[in-house]
Amino acid sequence: MVYFSMLMDVNIVFIESGGITSPAGFFAGAAYAGIKKKSPDALDLALLYSETDADVAAVFTTNRIKAAPVIVDQKRLEQNGKIRAVLVNSGCANACTGEKGIEDALQTTLLAAEYLGIPAEKVLVASTGVIGVRLPFENIKDGIGRIALTREGGHQFTRAIMTTDTRPKECAVRITGKGVDFVIGGTAKGAGMIHPNMATMLGFLATDAAVDAGFLKRALKAAVDDTFNMVSVDGDTSTNDTVLILANGLAGNPPIREDSKLASVFQQALNRVCLKLAKGIAADGEGATRLIEIQVNGALSIRDARLVARTIASSPLVKTAVHGCDPNWGRVVAAAGRSGAELEQDKIDVYFGDLCLLKSGTPQQFEKSEASKILRNKEVVMRVNLNLGQYSAVAWGCDLSEEYVVINSEYTT
Amino acid sequence: MVYFSMLMDVNIVFIESGGITSPAGFFAGAAYAGIKKKSPDALDLALLYSETDADVAAVFTTNRIKAAPVIVDQKRLEQNGKIRAVLVNSGCANACTGEKGIEDALQTTLLAAEYLGIPAEKVLVASTGVIGVRLPFENIKDGIGRIALTREGGHQFTRAIMTTDTRPKECAVRITGKGVDFVIGGTAKGAGMIHPNMATMLGFLATDAAVDAGFLKRALKAAVDDTFNMVSVDGDTSTNDTVLILANGLAGNPPIREDSKLASVFQQALNRVCLKLAKGIAADGEGATRLIEIQVNGALSIRDARLVARTIASSPLVKTAVHGCDPNWGRVVAAAGRSGAELEQDKIDVYFGDLCLLKSGTPQQFEKSEASKILRNKEVVMRVNLNLGQYSAVAWGCDLSEEYVVINSEYTT
Repeated sequence: MVYFSMLMDVNIVFIESGGITSPAGFFAGAAYAGIKKKSPDALDLALLYSETDADVAAVFTTNRIKAAPVIVDQKRLEQNGKIRAVLVNSGCANACTGEKGIEDALQTTLLAAEYLGIPAEKVLVASTGVIGVRLPFENIKDGIGRIALTREGGHQFTRAIMTTDTRPKECAVRITGKGVDFVIGGTAKGAGMIHPNMATMLGFLATDAAVDAGFLKRALKAAVDDTFNMVSVDGDTSTNDTVLILANGLAGNPPIREDSKLASVFQQALNRVCLKLAKGIAADGEGATRLIEIQVNGALSIRDARLVARTIASSPLVKTAVHGCDPNWGRVVAAAGRSGAELEQDKIDVYFGDLCLLKSGTPQQFEKSEASKILRNKEVVMRVNLNLGQYSAVAWGCDLSEEYVVINSEYTT
Repeated sequence: MVYFSMLMDVNIVFIESGGITSPAGFFAGAAYAGIKKKSPDALDLALLYSETDADVAAVFTTNRIKAAPVIVDQKRLEQNGKIRAVLVNSGCANACTGEKGIEDALQTTLLAAEYLGIPAEKVLVASTGVIGVRLPFENIKDGIGRIALTREGGHQFTRAIMTTDTRPKECAVRITGKGVDFVIGGTAKGAGMIHPNMATMLGFLATDAAVDAGFLKRALKAAVDDTFNMVSVDGDTSTNDTVLILANGLAGNPPIREDSKLASVFQQALNRVCLKLAKGIAADGEGATRLIEIQVNGALSIRDARLVARTIASSPLVKTAVHGCDPNWGRVVAAAGRSGAELEQDKIDVYFGDLCLLKSGTPQQFEKSEASKILRNKEVVMRVNLNLGQYSAVAWGCDLSEEYVVINSEYTT
C-alpha cells in the first residue's frame, strides 16, 4: 500500500518483511539463554544495536509498581541523551525484586556494554515474564556472548521477545520524496503471559531519520496514545510495559523538528507502524479468535472518546458476545454508560459494521442473522456515535474465549 | 450466630430461613408471566407489599445509561416520601427503550396499584433481563392477577427475580434488647445475565423498624458502599442496578435517627444483611467455583483502600490464577499498582490466608503447595497491606472459569 501525505509529495510505503533493523545502521540478534523453558526454536535474549549514537524517546507503564528495568531506563533517560543498544529478555520480568533487581538490571547493561564496546550508560534494558523472580545473571552473561548481530537480526529479535504471542509482530515503512528517504521499523510483543505471569506489552521502534530529541518524545507519545494505549486484551496493566524509539540520523536529513515540513509526515509514518503493531497485539490476545475495532465519534472531548472506546473494547460482556457472535448491542451501550464519559442516552447511535442497531437511543429493527454475520468476521467493527461533540477515538480488543481462561489459570509456578 | 453490639445490650441474630418478608407487615408473592423462557419452576414477576406506608431509601446504578424503571423510581422518590409496594420482573430489563419504555414502566405501576388498591405513586418498579426489548405489557397485566401475597412469599419473590443465579440469596436478622425488637430482611439477585444480557444486581430490603427517612438514606448508602459496591463479578455495571429499603415502622419503636442510641445498631444489622447478600452474589458469579475476599489495610484514604480491593477482586488475571490455584502474587501486586491508589512498592505486604508471600515489597520464600492449597478453599482470602495509612476495605469477587465464557457467549437473542 502506498500512502500519500496530504502536506508534501511524500510516499509512505510498507517494506516487505520489514522490521526493527530495516532502518540503516541498526543491527540485532538473539540467543537462547535458558531463561524461559526450552522449546525447539526458543529464544529469550535479544539485543538491538545502533552503529552510531541514537536519540531516544520512551513511554513506560503507568502502573505504580514498576519493574527494575523500567526504573533503570527511566533514570538513564533522564541523565543521558543518546543510546546505542537495548537488551531485552523474556521469561523473567525482574519485577517486585527490590534493590537486588535494580542491581541485576544494571549489571546486565554492563555485560551488553562490554560485549559491544560501548559505555553501559548507553544501554537500555527491558524484561517480560514471571514476577518476583530474580534475573538468572549467569545465563544472561553466557547468552549475550552467543548473540550474532546482523542487519537482518530484527526477525530474531522479534521472536526472542515473544511470550505467549502466537506470531511475531514487526513491520517497517519507507518514507520517500524529493530529498527525503528514511525508514521507520518496529517490533512488539503483546499482552500474552509467560508461565503464568504478566501481560506485558513491549514495543521497540527504530529510525534512521535524524529527529530532534524533543520532537521525538512528543511524536512517540502522540503515536502511543492513539495506538498501543488503545489496545486492551484483559484490562490488566503490566509492571513492565515499555515502548521506545531510537533515531540514529543515518538518513542524513536535517533533524526533524516540530516546525519542520517533515514533522507531520514523520508523525504519520510513526503512527502507521505503531498502529500495525498495536492491532497485531490485539488480534493475538490470549485465546483470541477475532480483532474488535471500536470506533467512537461525537464525543465532547478526546478523553471521553478514548474512555468510551477503551471501556467497550475491554468489557468482558462485549468480548464474550463477540465470541458467541451474539449481536448484543445492549452490552455496548451499557459499557459506554459506565465509562465515565459524558453522554445522553437518547442521542446514541450504535452500528455493527454498516448495520444500524440503535439510532438516537431507539432500538432499530435489524436482521439478527445479518448482525451475527458481521460478528463472524476476523475483524469486527463497531461504531458508536455519541452525537454530542467533535471528538473521535478508536480502540482495539479481541474476543474472550474459553482458551483465555485455560491459558491464564494454568498452574505453572 | 449471635452478635453483640458494642454500644448497647442488644443482640443481632440471623433468623432461620429469613428473608424479605420476615419483618412485620410485609407480604410478597410471585407468578410466571411468560417474560422469560419457561422452565419447570419458572417465576418472572414478583411483588412486595407493605400493609402500611413505608419510608424508603434507594441506591441506583451509576451507569449513565439508566433503564426506564430506574428513571421512574428516581423521579418517584424525589416527589414522594412513602411507598407501599415494589413490582419486579426478570426476563426484560426495559433498558434502552426510550420514552415508550418509561411509559411501560409507569403503566405497570398502575396495574400493581389497581390490584393492591393503593395509589400508583406508592409503587416502585425494577427490571432485569434483556436490553432493548419492550416490556410485554399484557403478560404483566395477566401475571399480576395471579400473584398471591403471603407472609412467607419472600422466598417466591427471591426466586422470581433470579436470572442466571444458581441459588436464591435471602436472609433476615432480628435485633432484640431492652425495649428493642425489630427485624431487617433482604433478598438480592446477582451479576448473572439473562439470555444473554445485563449483569444486573438488584437488592431489596425491608424492616419493621421505624426509621427517620434521612437516616435511612444515609444508612443504606453506607451499607451499600461497604457491601454491594465492593462486589465484582466482571467489572461491568448494569443499567438497572438497584438496592432499596422499605421501613414500615410496625415494630413501634420511636423512629431511629442519626443521634439515636439505636442508630449504630441499626447500621450494624443492616450491614450484616447486605454483607451476606453481597457475598452470596460474589460466590454465585457466573461460572464461579470460589469466593475471593480481598482485604486491604494501611491505605491513605478509604477511597484508595476501596480502589485497591476492587481492582484486585476484578482483575481477570487474579481471577484466572485463583481458578487455576496458582499462587501468583505478582498479579495481585500489579493490579494494586494500576488501581490508581497511592502506594509504594517497597512497603507492600501480600498474604494468601496467613501465608506471607511478599513483605515490604520483597518476595518471601514459601511452599507453593501450601499457597495453592489456600487457593483451593471455597473462600479464598488475600490480604494486602499498603503500610501507608489507616484505612481499610474489603472486596469480594469470584474466580474466572471457562464456564463464564460459555454462559456469556451463548447465542440467544
